[in-house]
Amino acid sequence: MSVIPPSHTDLLERPLFAHLATRRADGSPQVNPMWVVWDGTHLRMTGTTVRYKHRNIEAEPRVALSINDPDQPYRYLEVRGTVVDVLDDSSGEFFLSLAARYGMKTDGPPGDVAHRVVYVVRPDHTTSQ
Amino acid sequence: MSVIPPSHTDLLERPLFAHLATRRADGSPQVNPMWVVWDGTHLRMTGTTVRYKHRNIEAEPRVALSINDPDQPYRYLEVRGTVVDVLDDSSGEFFLSLAARYGMKTDGPPGDVAHRVVYVVRPDHTTSQ
Repeated sequence: MSVIPPSHTDLLERPLFAHLATRRADGSPQVNPMWVVWDGTHLRMTGTTVRYKHRNIEAEPRVALSINDPDQPYRYLEVRGTVVDVLDDSSGEFFLSLAARYGMKTDGPPGDVAHRVVYVVRPDHTTSQ
Repeated sequence: MSVIPPSHTDLLERPLFAHLATRRADGSPQVNPMWVVWDGTHLRMTGTTVRYKHRNIEAEPRVALSINDPDQPYRYLEVRGTVVDVLDDSSGEFFLSLAARYGMKTDGPPGDVAHRVVYVVRPDHTTSQ
């Protein structure tokens, strides 16, 4: 059974931006908006191995995501979880599936496709309102 | 001079939600949406001393905020900064000024007003797109 409360699964099902918090090497937090998709068990996000965020996740796989409802901004879901897998996406297939989900027009895989990866996050705890 | 890029100050001037990341006692990140106001130098947020977030900030004053533009969701601003002051707001005056800024109807100060504080954040670094 998922830890995601049924009352808030729509926030993961809709193509909303998730603000992903990671821990930097100096111990301070970093946070920025990300695409996310949920399969009922895991959350998946696209990233590249050449960014700070990747180093953060390799050093500290515990992450947190915050999503609020643009139509009812006081409704939100925070998911704290763990990056349990980092998968190769050098074909860009996963990136393109997210681009389609979020309505971004593309001319094929992005320029940094050689470094693309998929972060697979296991939700561990949530808070919501 | 502020570290906030002039191209993105509108994201702090408009009543948008900021996703605030803090560090938990176990070292993992926490993130959730918050009201925020900017005076050109510091960011200010309302909180209460009886929440986890307050303990997080007392132990680790370095925080990060992420705000994206609901009208152009790929525009965003991340501010990494330091909570340089925690001020008493047991009158609720600051809370009510934020409630008014965000268009929330209130019947006076909130029930937890006795524990209300103002987090004063000095922006140290930003990333934006």
